[in-house]
Amino acid sequence: MTENIYIGSKPVLNYVTALVTAFQREPSVHVFARGRAISSAVDVVEVCKRSFLKNIHVDEIAIGTDQLGDGDDLRNVSTIKITLRKTDYDS
Amino acid sequence: MTENIYIGSKPVLNYVTALVTAFQREPSVHVFARGRAISSAVDVVEVCKRSFLKNIHVDEIAIGTDQLGDGDDLRNVSTIKITLRKTDYDS
Repeated sequence: MTENIYIGSKPVLNYVTALVTAFQREPSVHVFARGRAISSAVDVVEVCKRSFLKNIHVDEIAIGTDQLGDGDDLRNVSTIKITLRKTDYDS
Repeated sequence: MTENIYIGSKPVLNYVTALVTAFQREPSVHVFARGRAISSAVDVVEVCKRSFLKNIHVDEIAIGTDQLGDGDDLRNVSTIKITLRKTDYDS
């Protein structure tokens, strides 16, 4: 199974903790972010790989666009989805 | 051949223009960004795909970490490299 983690405007280490915890339950995690939080999503993954979980690798990165609001308030926001996977299920 | 475009803190449309121009010369372009500009890089690619060049697709997205400065000023900054390719060289 795969867990989803949504990156927002909290400190990066909050999401790193969530990611480490998620990998204790599942071998694969999706990291989602929109707009300005996209940079933070990359930070979360890189900090996690560098300092906490050396046995995860990036399976896939997808970018896209979400439409938010409607009518005059309709706007496009960029999205990212980073799929991470443990390289060794036993460790 | 492949052109490189480095995304910084200028308005997104400046880089969209650069990307459209680069695709007039080459079938493939690398979009690079670091730190906060990573979100802008995704914006540039998405705006370009949506509004200007409908025949480009994302070949690969790679994320990583660069070390900046040295000594006490040493710090890590996240990076992204988005490889784009024209799906039809003649259009």
